[in-house]
Amino acid sequence: MQGVRALLFDVFGTVVDWRSGVAREAAVFFARRGINADPHAFADAWRDRYQPAMQAVRSGVRPFTRLDTLHRENLLGILRSVGVDPTGLPEAEIDDLNRAWHRLDPWPDSIGGLERLKSRFIIAPLSNGNVALLLNMAKRAGLPWDAILGAEVAQAYKPQPEAYLRTADILGLDPAACMLVAAHNGDLAAARRCGLRTAFVARPTEHGPNQATDLAPSEAWDIVASDFNDLATRLGCA
Amino acid sequence: MQGVRALLFDVFGTVVDWRSGVAREAAVFFARRGINADPHAFADAWRDRYQPAMQAVRSGVRPFTRLDTLHRENLLGILRSVGVDPTGLPEAEIDDLNRAWHRLDPWPDSIGGLERLKSRFIIAPLSNGNVALLLNMAKRAGLPWDAILGAEVAQAYKPQPEAYLRTADILGLDPAACMLVAAHNGDLAAARRCGLRTAFVARPTEHGPNQATDLAPSEAWDIVASDFNDLATRLGCA
Repeated sequence: MQGVRALLFDVFGTVVDWRSGVAREAAVFFARRGINADPHAFADAWRDRYQPAMQAVRSGVRPFTRLDTLHRENLLGILRSVGVDPTGLPEAEIDDLNRAWHRLDPWPDSIGGLERLKSRFIIAPLSNGNVALLLNMAKRAGLPWDAILGAEVAQAYKPQPEAYLRTADILGLDPAACMLVAAHNGDLAAARRCGLRTAFVARPTEHGPNQATDLAPSEAWDIVASDFNDLATRLGCA
Repeated sequence: MQGVRALLFDVFGTVVDWRSGVAREAAVFFARRGINADPHAFADAWRDRYQPAMQAVRSGVRPFTRLDTLHRENLLGILRSVGVDPTGLPEAEIDDLNRAWHRLDPWPDSIGGLERLKSRFIIAPLSNGNVALLLNMAKRAGLPWDAILGAEVAQAYKPQPEAYLRTADILGLDPAACMLVAAHNGDLAAARRCGLRTAFVARPTEHGPNQATDLAPSEAWDIVASDFNDLATRLGCA
């Protein structure tokens, strides 16, 4: 991997366990409000509205809108689907639940691996999460990013090419000097089409115990690693 | 300073000693090329073209253009002023000299103070420097930023209000939850007009031994500190 200067990371699923984290926060909310609902199903349903919401931005139907705003719009719909009228809730309580996505825990190897990788490479998120979300997450969890990049800085949602290409340009690097690290084959395929290097790290329980997608690499990615520590070793980090 | 969540830092002069750093790099270039010129005067002359170049962006004469590009345009003019025809130089050598601004050293208290401040606050640059410049500087010098913000992310150069207000908005914070730390009264005045809190740290040798500006606060800023360690103490950091 001669010439790679920056490692750019997908975050939801690749660095942090969004499903467990959102379910944990939803369970607290349900208990407080006496709601009888499955918090993991709630997390899955919230996430199901993620791609359609971004698609409205990608297609140009609406201007670039940060993910916190899209998450909040989706949350109102999901609350109604479990029988909660959000108009009866304080705005601050909805905002706090919406920030569940700011309080996700890393996978066990994430921080240790990132610390090792940081010694040799620029490390930054290239996530569809917005800056405040990623920064608050990093500050709470101890993710040692060198910078907070991604869709909001690039003003384009992955997998649009602009998300990858503008990020490389902002870093002052050729795409080939950037490597995307992701647990999602589709994200890596889009990055490769833009000229970035690619590293796949499987996260087989991102979607829970019955996950059927992204269990294995779908193409010959530049690196396939079992976790971030294995990635650091493969990239020659002490 | 109840309610302050993020400390945003001016960088050139406030965090790093740009004049000594640029002069050091210019001296190496002059020695290699056999040029007889004063490296500190060269640094001052390069910096003199900084505000006029940004003014073309602020006034709308040209679209937002990152500082690396403005610095490079200005460098070509400065080289001619010391009798060097830049068309006779390899592009890579000009680019490397231009990146002198990526290789500036912090003031002696900067890193220790930032480490202390980071324990209680979000810390990020709010500089007119571009992301790659600030990131490469931080990586080389060990500046422990939580994020790299500033003019390029906000798409506006200080002291335009958008530079401060968009940065607070990106952080998901009210302006009053953000404090600008700067060695320049004009920067602080602009931030205050936008509702940010303000901290002045004098850097009396930023412009060399005969500095006549910004030696003392021009208004009653929220905090006046002698250096970043004093600032950390005043803000209650261990």
